[in-house]
Amino acid sequence: MSYDINKLVEKVVNEVKSEAVSNQPATKKVKMNLALARRLVEKVKLKAKEIGVNAVVAVADGGGNVITVDCMDNAYIASLDIAMNKAFTSVALKMPTSALAKLARPDGPLYGIQNTNNGRIVIFGGGVPLESDGEIIGGCGVSGGTAEQDTYLGDCAKEIFAELVKTGE
Amino acid sequence: MSYDINKLVEKVVNEVKSEAVSNQPATKKVKMNLALARRLVEKVKLKAKEIGVNAVVAVADGGGNVITVDCMDNAYIASLDIAMNKAFTSVALKMPTSALAKLARPDGPLYGIQNTNNGRIVIFGGGVPLESDGEIIGGCGVSGGTAEQDTYLGDCAKEIFAELVKTGE
Amino acid sequence: MSYDINKLVEKVVNEVKSEAVSNQPATKKVKMNLALARRLVEKVKLKAKEIGVNAVVAVADGGGNVITVDCMDNAYIASLDIAMNKAFTSVALKMPTSALAKLARPDGPLYGIQNTNNGRIVIFGGGVPLESDGEIIGGCGVSGGTAEQDTYLGDCAKEIFAELVKTGE
Amino acid sequence: MSYDINKLVEKVVNEVKSEAVSNQPATKKVKMNLALARRLVEKVKLKAKEIGVNAVVAVADGGGNVITVDCMDNAYIASLDIAMNKAFTSVALKMPTSALAKLARPDGPLYGIQNTNNGRIVIFGGGVPLESDGEIIGGCGVSGGTAEQDTYLGDCAKEIFAELVKTGE
Repeated sequence: MSYDINKLVEKVVNEVKSEAVSNQPATKKVKMNLALARRLVEKVKLKAKEIGVNAVVAVADGGGNVITVDCMDNAYIASLDIAMNKAFTSVALKMPTSALAKLARPDGPLYGIQNTNNGRIVIFGGGVPLESDGEIIGGCGVSGGTAEQDTYLGDCAKEIFAELVKTGE
Repeated sequence: MSYDINKLVEKVVNEVKSEAVSNQPATKKVKMNLALARRLVEKVKLKAKEIGVNAVVAVADGGGNVITVDCMDNAYIASLDIAMNKAFTSVALKMPTSALAKLARPDGPLYGIQNTNNGRIVIFGGGVPLESDGEIIGGCGVSGGTAEQDTYLGDCAKEIFAELVKTGE
Repeated sequence: MSYDINKLVEKVVNEVKSEAVSNQPATKKVKMNLALARRLVEKVKLKAKEIGVNAVVAVADGGGNVITVDCMDNAYIASLDIAMNKAFTSVALKMPTSALAKLARPDGPLYGIQNTNNGRIVIFGGGVPLESDGEIIGGCGVSGGTAEQDTYLGDCAKEIFAELVKTGE
Repeated sequence: MSYDINKLVEKVVNEVKSEAVSNQPATKKVKMNLALARRLVEKVKLKAKEIGVNAVVAVADGGGNVITVDCMDNAYIASLDIAMNKAFTSVALKMPTSALAKLARPDGPLYGIQNTNNGRIVIFGGGVPLESDGEIIGGCGVSGGTAEQDTYLGDCAKEIFAELVKTGE
């Protein structure tokens, strides 16, 4: 049995290279999709139920386009529009909607922003950007409770989403 | 004196059956309809006349859809939209519109809610939810006087409606 | 007793003149108001009931502003907007809405008119101008049946209104 | 063997009562709610997948208010608005949106209906009313395929819903 030593070396080198690449930290780029959004919505509704709120929960993708919404039974009729637009706003302005309230006051630097974008900008809490690897890949909007409750549920949504992304659930 | 035992048993059974059925809790579920809404509108207009207001009075059903409106002679042209949207708002947010004024101020927790729902949210008094058995089955919106007068007339509407429902008038 | 014959003549002449004026045919100018509009609505609803249509009936004044609307039970939700805008359209364009269908077709002279006035122009039957002394003093819009039924009910509204004005009912 | 005649009578009376009550027609009134709507959405998405369409599926309640929406991955961005408004339209006009196409043509009797209700009327297939006991209790709107595919999926939604209501699933 004879060996072509060059071939052998090449083979070993390629195997080592390939292993090296697979050992690099996986970028594991998460993309927003319906399955992920639905998991988020279900978990946020559980949180809403816990605190006794009939919430509307909407999720938008990185383009600010809503991809799913649920209105819990007996939610406010007005909350559908608000939750969807909170999801949009948090993507469109890359910040939680709770941060906008102060900015949009008559003495604030963004006074009037609530009148732009065909009325789609919501300036009270409940909308949060959803991130993966430091990049905004979507937004979640919650409406149905007090501003405080909506803000709390928005914060929950952000945390739940981070967990979903991390565990790749 | 002789008995037809079968007739007797039949009679007793029928009486017991009839009693059993009539003893079931009467659901007496009141549903919003045009007849009820019109009675409310007529009575609210009388109240408006009493205090010298040329009011617009609108009634919405439980889905927030307006089912009747009257504009008293010489009412403000602008009041049609306002009364209809007060009726919508009070159903859509399950609260009197007078409660929204403070919440929607620049320093309030719902500042900006007036920019949602395509401009259909009214944030000053005159809109009230209408209830039956603790459930919101519609809303009434009054516009035409000062905010104080509209709020007063809205409160009247709520009371009048409760009376109409109670008396089954 | 002495007479100032000039004063006497003047007095007689004035009395005769005054009588002459009061003998002139009264113009009896009818103005649209809520009472008149309500009588119309009630009568149109009876006609709708006769032909088995759950109609929405709206009446606008001479300014094109709707002053009353009724949605019969189980009417189409979409008919509220349509009836109100038929009433507006018939005043705003001084013609029955049935006349607009042909004019607004792609090969018609008013193609595109349905896209003007913020979407308030309705181009199928059911809206009619309401006249008194040859002047348009309002409009009635009916929606809820087929286009044929709505057109029929609009025609009824026009006739009923003419009768109401004539009899001063 | 001895009888306690009172016990016996009581027993018979109770049995008769119980039978009388249970013999009353079961109202089994199905109301639209989120759980039911979600089951429908999931099943319609499976149908869409079967025929290779990335659909948006929306469900509205009996007041025409949308209560849930899902956008399948890679659906048209424009389909969100269309599906939601198909659901609204089928409730608001009590007919499948496919029936509107012909009616709303330039030579049809409802030409122009697509310009009413602030642009919320959709006049091509994919929207269907959802019924229970012969009453419309909601609507489903599907968008994402060809008009033919959307119409097919709408018809599927109607059938699936009837089955869900029947089996009380």
